[in-house]
Amino acid sequence: MSNPSLANTLNHQVRLASRPVGLPTDANWQLTQETLAPPGPGGVLVKTLALSLDPAMRGWMNEGKSYIPPVGIGEVMRAGGVGVVVASDSPAFEIGSHVAGGLGVQAYCHIPAEQLRKSGLSRIDLRLGTLTQWLNVLGMPGMTAYFGLLQVGHPQPGQTVVVSGAAGAVGQTVGQLARIKGCRVVGIAGGQAKCDWVVKELGFDACIDYKAGQVKEGLRELCPKGVDVYFDNVGGDILDTVLTRITRGARIVICGAISQYNATSAVQGPKNYLSLLVNRARMEGMVVFDYADRYPQAIAELAGYLKDGRMISREDVVAGGVQAFPATLLKLFSGENFGKLVLKVADE
Amino acid sequence: MSNPSLANTLNHQVRLASRPVGLPTDANWQLTQETLAPPGPGGVLVKTLALSLDPAMRGWMNEGKSYIPPVGIGEVMRAGGVGVVVASDSPAFEIGSHVAGGLGVQAYCHIPAEQLRKSGLSRIDLRLGTLTQWLNVLGMPGMTAYFGLLQVGHPQPGQTVVVSGAAGAVGQTVGQLARIKGCRVVGIAGGQAKCDWVVKELGFDACIDYKAGQVKEGLRELCPKGVDVYFDNVGGDILDTVLTRITRGARIVICGAISQYNATSAVQGPKNYLSLLVNRARMEGMVVFDYADRYPQAIAELAGYLKDGRMISREDVVAGGVQAFPATLLKLFSGENFGKLVLKVADE
Repeated sequence: MSNPSLANTLNHQVRLASRPVGLPTDANWQLTQETLAPPGPGGVLVKTLALSLDPAMRGWMNEGKSYIPPVGIGEVMRAGGVGVVVASDSPAFEIGSHVAGGLGVQAYCHIPAEQLRKSGLSRIDLRLGTLTQWLNVLGMPGMTAYFGLLQVGHPQPGQTVVVSGAAGAVGQTVGQLARIKGCRVVGIAGGQAKCDWVVKELGFDACIDYKAGQVKEGLRELCPKGVDVYFDNVGGDILDTVLTRITRGARIVICGAISQYNATSAVQGPKNYLSLLVNRARMEGMVVFDYADRYPQAIAELAGYLKDGRMISREDVVAGGVQAFPATLLKLFSGENFGKLVLKVADE
Repeated sequence: MSNPSLANTLNHQVRLASRPVGLPTDANWQLTQETLAPPGPGGVLVKTLALSLDPAMRGWMNEGKSYIPPVGIGEVMRAGGVGVVVASDSPAFEIGSHVAGGLGVQAYCHIPAEQLRKSGLSRIDLRLGTLTQWLNVLGMPGMTAYFGLLQVGHPQPGQTVVVSGAAGAVGQTVGQLARIKGCRVVGIAGGQAKCDWVVKELGFDACIDYKAGQVKEGLRELCPKGVDVYFDNVGGDILDTVLTRITRGARIVICGAISQYNATSAVQGPKNYLSLLVNRARMEGMVVFDYADRYPQAIAELAGYLKDGRMISREDVVAGGVQAFPATLLKLFSGENFGKLVLKVADE
């Protein structure tokens, strides 16, 4: 290890202790600590500065086939994060350089040489965006928004785009990007404060407060020509309601279904799916990793919007280190977070 | 009227008396008769020879927005059919020529000049196929199969195509066409007799009897590489089961949902729809009328397959005239019909 100050440093980790039924509880987690080992030949040691908390994490905790394998019992919980290289035997990662990647819920992440490529660890340029923006607009949520909206949703100028979870990490970028591309944009979010922010700060044309229970009426009033693209982060009743308002040839991007992730009974299927038939419409799933080759192009475009002020980025940063992970994660499912939920792990 | 033998002829009609709840009953129909009037200037009078009975008819009986307006109370029930021109003031339709179009459930159909274009009445060539084949492979079911499979399903040679309602009108052509295009084809049908026919006569690679209750096991065994294209005519549990077996990038063609058409509670939504996300797959609706400009091309291709024996066409022809319509329609929903259900109305 080329950094003597790390000798005898403890690494704190949050591991999956058991698979949750419904909302995760403390019993599903195990906090461990171990002494840091120096990186082996070609390896890199990253100090975690901040972690991304994502609804998809709930799915990774379940057993069974999905788009990536589940987190194993006893393993460090999977998480994307940003950090700084504190020890390195790799010429690609100098000590002091900032990186993003799958660091896991731990204070330090050691990536051996043979996993460097697969891990997707990459250097980040803080001139393009702040550390937390690299977990938001310039990170996975931004990539998901960019490719989901443009490559699956195919919005055309003048069309109406509706996005649920509008004040969340993916939703905020979907809506702003749709606006920049010349669409009418209507958000769906929980609570008046979020809706106000979505309209006043993000520049959406309108936003429907689903907690007020008037989604159907809101869509009728605010999308008089119907919904051409629906970017769905929530599933459940909201998906079903939007299905009643789609236009002929509409595209529904299935990005997530946060309303269903903690369901202990069967997932609620969209009972209005035959609207797809009547309207010759399409419902299509997307997984951001498929577009990894094109992240640089998306990052460049989105960083440009941040720089010229056409796009803003809001993060809800919670302090507390990795120990605060179990409690902080729950904010996602109560809808408590406002903007991209980030766990601050350490100062640089 | 240029055909004196028609003077004083009675036209028998089946009209929609009320909207059904669940399966249609006799109370939903009214049998009427009226004396034939001669066609006006430019009009055509067609004697109905056979009518197409379609699952979609159930939807046309419901109130509310769909891809075409509902049949009005008191109106002659909408139906596609084939017939012969018995009186004409139109140079495009000589007496004695065979035609197909929306004749309705009636012994004679009078089409005034101003509705000729909109009605879609077209001459049919009995050298390309028999009268009942013009209601099947060369008619709407064949067009639905052709464009739904090729334009929405995008099957590639070597891929696995699954079709439900495999012994029905649309399903039989979907499966045979997929086979001709070089796919592995697995049908789903009700009962061993239908399954045997689908494999032995239509040349599917396999067929699963859903009534035996082993759809999941059957798909696992018969589609070891997963399902690349699913052509869905039935909805409900079968759609949900197929969703668990789709491949990455799969296409699900939503053509119908016969299991749900008589539902008196909410339609059953596909609770496994998040498989679309995991598999980056697509579920897309289609309505055959959108492809009307290209019917001639499809008819030419399909007629070629009939002629060279690569495709066969089975119709389940019920005699009895228009009066038999209400009872015959129910065969569709009990799964009793074997092949395209046709009501024979009259000899030529």
